[in-house]
Amino acid sequence: MSQSSINLDIANRIPLQPIADVAREKLGLDPSQIELFGRYKAKVPLASLPPFPSKSESKLILMTAMTPTTAGEGKTTTLIGLVDALNKIGQKAVAALREPSLGPCFGLKGGGCGGGYAQVVPMTDINLHFTGDFHAVTSAHNLLAALVDNHLYWGHEPHLDPRRVTWGRVLDVNDRSLRSVVTGLGGKANGFTRESRFDITAASEVMAILCLATDLQDLQQRLGNIKVGRRVNKEMVFAKEIQAEGAMTALLKEALNPNLVQTLEHNPALVHGGPYGNIAHGCSSVVATKAALTLADYVVTEGGFGADLGAEKFFNIKCRQAGLTPACAVVVGTIKALKLHGGAKEKALEQEDLGALRQGCQICCVIWKM
Amino acid sequence: MSQSSINLDIANRIPLQPIADVAREKLGLDPSQIELFGRYKAKVPLASLPPFPSKSESKLILMTAMTPTTAGEGKTTTLIGLVDALNKIGQKAVAALREPSLGPCFGLKGGGCGGGYAQVVPMTDINLHFTGDFHAVTSAHNLLAALVDNHLYWGHEPHLDPRRVTWGRVLDVNDRSLRSVVTGLGGKANGFTRESRFDITAASEVMAILCLATDLQDLQQRLGNIKVGRRVNKEMVFAKEIQAEGAMTALLKEALNPNLVQTLEHNPALVHGGPYGNIAHGCSSVVATKAALTLADYVVTEGGFGADLGAEKFFNIKCRQAGLTPACAVVVGTIKALKLHGGAKEKALEQEDLGALRQGCQICCVIWKM
Amino acid sequence: MSQSSINLDIANRIPLQPIADVAREKLGLDPSQIELFGRYKAKVPLASLPPFPSKSESKLILMTAMTPTTAGEGKTTTLIGLVDALNKIGQKAVAALREPSLGPCFGLKGGGCGGGYAQVVPMTDINLHFTGDFHAVTSAHNLLAALVDNHLYWGHEPHLDPRRVTWGRVLDVNDRSLRSVVTGLGGKANGFTRESRFDITAASEVMAILCLATDLQDLQQRLGNIKVGRRVNKEMVFAKEIQAEGAMTALLKEALNPNLVQTLEHNPALVHGGPYGNIAHGCSSVVATKAALTLADYVVTEGGFGADLGAEKFFNIKCRQAGLTPACAVVVGTIKALKLHGGAKEKALEQEDLGALRQGCQICCVIWKM
Amino acid sequence: MSQSSINLDIANRIPLQPIADVAREKLGLDPSQIELFGRYKAKVPLASLPPFPSKSESKLILMTAMTPTTAGEGKTTTLIGLVDALNKIGQKAVAALREPSLGPCFGLKGGGCGGGYAQVVPMTDINLHFTGDFHAVTSAHNLLAALVDNHLYWGHEPHLDPRRVTWGRVLDVNDRSLRSVVTGLGGKANGFTRESRFDITAASEVMAILCLATDLQDLQQRLGNIKVGRRVNKEMVFAKEIQAEGAMTALLKEALNPNLVQTLEHNPALVHGGPYGNIAHGCSSVVATKAALTLADYVVTEGGFGADLGAEKFFNIKCRQAGLTPACAVVVGTIKALKLHGGAKEKALEQEDLGALRQGCQICCVIWKM
Repeated sequence: MSQSSINLDIANRIPLQPIADVAREKLGLDPSQIELFGRYKAKVPLASLPPFPSKSESKLILMTAMTPTTAGEGKTTTLIGLVDALNKIGQKAVAALREPSLGPCFGLKGGGCGGGYAQVVPMTDINLHFTGDFHAVTSAHNLLAALVDNHLYWGHEPHLDPRRVTWGRVLDVNDRSLRSVVTGLGGKANGFTRESRFDITAASEVMAILCLATDLQDLQQRLGNIKVGRRVNKEMVFAKEIQAEGAMTALLKEALNPNLVQTLEHNPALVHGGPYGNIAHGCSSVVATKAALTLADYVVTEGGFGADLGAEKFFNIKCRQAGLTPACAVVVGTIKALKLHGGAKEKALEQEDLGALRQGCQICCVIWKM
Repeated sequence: MSQSSINLDIANRIPLQPIADVAREKLGLDPSQIELFGRYKAKVPLASLPPFPSKSESKLILMTAMTPTTAGEGKTTTLIGLVDALNKIGQKAVAALREPSLGPCFGLKGGGCGGGYAQVVPMTDINLHFTGDFHAVTSAHNLLAALVDNHLYWGHEPHLDPRRVTWGRVLDVNDRSLRSVVTGLGGKANGFTRESRFDITAASEVMAILCLATDLQDLQQRLGNIKVGRRVNKEMVFAKEIQAEGAMTALLKEALNPNLVQTLEHNPALVHGGPYGNIAHGCSSVVATKAALTLADYVVTEGGFGADLGAEKFFNIKCRQAGLTPACAVVVGTIKALKLHGGAKEKALEQEDLGALRQGCQICCVIWKM
Repeated sequence: MSQSSINLDIANRIPLQPIADVAREKLGLDPSQIELFGRYKAKVPLASLPPFPSKSESKLILMTAMTPTTAGEGKTTTLIGLVDALNKIGQKAVAALREPSLGPCFGLKGGGCGGGYAQVVPMTDINLHFTGDFHAVTSAHNLLAALVDNHLYWGHEPHLDPRRVTWGRVLDVNDRSLRSVVTGLGGKANGFTRESRFDITAASEVMAILCLATDLQDLQQRLGNIKVGRRVNKEMVFAKEIQAEGAMTALLKEALNPNLVQTLEHNPALVHGGPYGNIAHGCSSVVATKAALTLADYVVTEGGFGADLGAEKFFNIKCRQAGLTPACAVVVGTIKALKLHGGAKEKALEQEDLGALRQGCQICCVIWKM
Repeated sequence: MSQSSINLDIANRIPLQPIADVAREKLGLDPSQIELFGRYKAKVPLASLPPFPSKSESKLILMTAMTPTTAGEGKTTTLIGLVDALNKIGQKAVAALREPSLGPCFGLKGGGCGGGYAQVVPMTDINLHFTGDFHAVTSAHNLLAALVDNHLYWGHEPHLDPRRVTWGRVLDVNDRSLRSVVTGLGGKANGFTRESRFDITAASEVMAILCLATDLQDLQQRLGNIKVGRRVNKEMVFAKEIQAEGAMTALLKEALNPNLVQTLEHNPALVHGGPYGNIAHGCSSVVATKAALTLADYVVTEGGFGADLGAEKFFNIKCRQAGLTPACAVVVGTIKALKLHGGAKEKALEQEDLGALRQGCQICCVIWKM
């Protein structure tokens, strides 16, 4: 039985609470303050929330890790466990996680919903379309691309140089055939022939922007500042110069609202935004983190990859941009990773003590007070 | 003030009912039998519905039109008006409409939500992401495309001929640059270089299949029968031969459930599926039509374009496939269209009696009893 | 033994005369008036020739044919036979033929040097590089293409629209892969990405021009008038606007001089130019025909394909342009073609009387006095 | 007046000798032993030459240079001067030079025919089509490319992987748009869509092979050993496996014979082959060098670029392959280059003593006895 079957089996044996109940009991949110997506998912409209206080008493905790091995060291699992534990001892704690990408989900890697008894659910929904945020980012990104090519086609001011367009397209699917493409074939009616590319949606600049924006107005301004290419004289051209930011914002209006789900112990988790850690800041959205800080006393969130990359980006990009002050960081380490970094062979190691390592019992956490 | 601003203005002045209330009052559906998407949209899971009776007493009415002019003759408006009118005189009537495509919505044409006092609402939501059905079709279609290219890449059995792959990709955006593309550039690691294309999502064969499928099992079987290309020896290769249909069905599981919204008079409308009339059958989904026939006494639905195309496809494709027997057809005609088909100049005509024509007061309907 | 082996065998058994001897004895040209290319090929510089008389006494004879079958009806063979026969009876007669294309020569069809005892030699040389005329056309054509793309690259006046460039490239090779290509890939440094094509050299407009030009000055003017594309405002752009015609003329300077070879009976043949009959006028060069008319009393030349196409183009394009007045036409017909046009099956026919037909004894010629 | 106009002016004032006279007087070759290409160019068929002696008394001298500046240090000029000088003092000396490429000739760089009173002539002919060697290499290279794509098209054994074809195409033109292309577009009939490239002819592997081959048989064997790509199982596929080497050799038959022209002092120069020094061995042909060594007592030849590259390749590739033992090397150095390498600014330097440097009076040569 594979680990993901075990996860699914555990999740299926525990009945979910209606998300409206979780919202009311754990966050004090009235049903009229949330928007249901089926029975177990909801969006929390920013308008429903009290204004983010300039000096919040709530504690922001970062979950990060030592340099991870291929399988990952268990940041998400530890994070969910910590939130459940804090709730168990009577504290009001919320998880703030990233949304998994559909692409890798159908590819090699599993989703990012935790495992064992430390999961956020409903896992399959979260791993597939969830509340449509990734689709909205895909639509907004590709709308800008279509506007760029349409702009070129009609030769409008500002005169973009077709060879210097830098804005590509995205799809939420793992498809190596789309990494490098030529578009605009089939004659003059199909526009300028250009070399272009498709990235996966998690790598979209729109995704990075969505996760840094503080409200719709800020979102629109940031979208307008996207650089799409250059004029023949090499001056940069921005999305706002081709009037793209309004329609893009319309497409992202719902996506900006954080998503609410639950852990297996029925504690609240805001799962929102999924920018790639290797090319963007790799943290869940600013609006979700701030929402969590207005709704709970402890907010546990994470950064991508190890501390050297994810924690640095969290502190230096997300926190600075959003004016957040983390209270402490938890650094996940495993004996397995320590052994590997020390020179052990992965293969030998895996056979030796696989069971124990997978179940995470050897995870040691170092709490680093800020 | 443009017609679409007028429509929006009218819609904004009339408060919507919670869709759960519409479902309960007009369709007898308990809140636990529907899945909310926010307050004013819902999906009706097929499992919530009584089995479709072999001999239904409910009447199925087709709304069609004489050969339409550029602006359209008003099928959707008349349809909504007829449903509201039937409800007004105490009948239990439901509209069964197609979902509008995001692509044309940001392009030239308006959405397909009616106009004036004959609208389905919330219009902006329906016109943008709605409940994600188009996104699910896009994902499933492109997943199959990625699997095809991955299959080619690894040279697996059955050996597809890269020159004879017929399955393209789709995006729900109007983008002429994507009509004809070359994919797989950038060297061997990015796979076989191939000529390909992007259609809009409404033109996807997956969309046509979704609208003809009767349940998840039937959907999966139809998806498996999609032809993706040919072997070198010219034998056809089907989606099921590369094990694609399971994952595609998983992506379409929610999309198969009909969407429920309301007219401005708070009568129920099932808006579900949007296959292109020019290349597919152009009718809303079979499951929505059957659901409507189990929930109401009168179901008014429409076919794309004029009677010669849309009604023919409705009768000969959708009804035959689904075992439906329409009770009658309403054929919309307008004095404007009659004049134009008779040789009048469109320009002159528009200036002459624009106001009256636009408000639809000259529409004459012919009811054709089956 | 195949027909082409038989042809080669016949040709090998007959020793060639030095072409300088043929030029002196049959055309009265001194060695200093020709340019040797090896021992058996020569170019006749236009400067060596007396001016073309306004009223020539020499007779121009067109060899054409009834609608041909796949194998051809024997225009070239009959033409060479006629020239040899006229010389045999003491007349001064010259053949004026087209140069064969290297592309089809390595492809399906044989060259165009006649067969049996009616050949022009040295056949292999003529079929391969000959005196480099095709290579010169290839170079001049592709130089213009390079100048067009270079012009686009630097954005010089006149501002060509990259989508409206109509000038492609040529190669003298049968290569289906080059029919439709995308050029300018690999990033900005490699210029505008464009859809383009390679035709075979015989289909080049430069080849058609070379065959209609009367001298270097006329050639340069015609080259300057080549249309290479359009501006964004749709105005046409010509080769002279990007200063291409001078360099192109330099590359074609030698190619404009007619080539002299011999028949197996050591009679002179001017083999010069090879424009495609299906897209251009399909006749050998005007300069070679005029040169022949100043050097001999009878000049026999041919047009491509059947009389309906080749003779029409010869009379209406080449003769009108060049001010030539043909004295008569010989129309080749064969019993085989008559049978086939009458409905006989090619396969059956070929088995029945293959030998006789191939040796041409059933060819009947109709002489049509102008 | 530019340097190239000065060169042309000098060349035009000195009447050329018929090349047949040069061949007879300076090399002892009878007119029947050479093949004329016009009056001033000839090919020396390998069959005309005595066999290359195992121990030749003739001296082979390499002209090379210190690391050159942008303008070049004058290897060719010095070489021609040395040959003229040796002849002046009664020695039998021949130059063995590379043919210039048409591409760079119409691009930035001048041809490679020397300058001032140290030129080989007729310069324009040599710089343009010359005797067609480059065209023959282009044809042979592209024929192999066409055979590769035809082989792929029909799916013949050995099964080439379309993604692993490494053989590109060449054209003798400077055209950045052709550096990176996609071929085989336009549907199945045009074959496999592939990423490919055009190099300039001087960079063709066929050119390198032509310059290393010792006779037609050796040429054919080397052509057969060209690697064109790999099978799906990654095994290499060679030109001989698709039967390409015979037709390629036929196209190169004439090109393998060295070309004979003269210096302005009417001394013989064999100008033959032009492989690129940066990617191939950059020396003129082995057959021309050997022919020169059988016909004269001193043969002066050159390698591309500076001594570190060109002399190394000459000694270690050409001489080893061909069994040649150079007698000495002349290393050209200039005060200008010494100054520049010492850190002087090129701009300042050029203004200072341009005239003198350009006329080469400051060239100092170091003779390096082997």
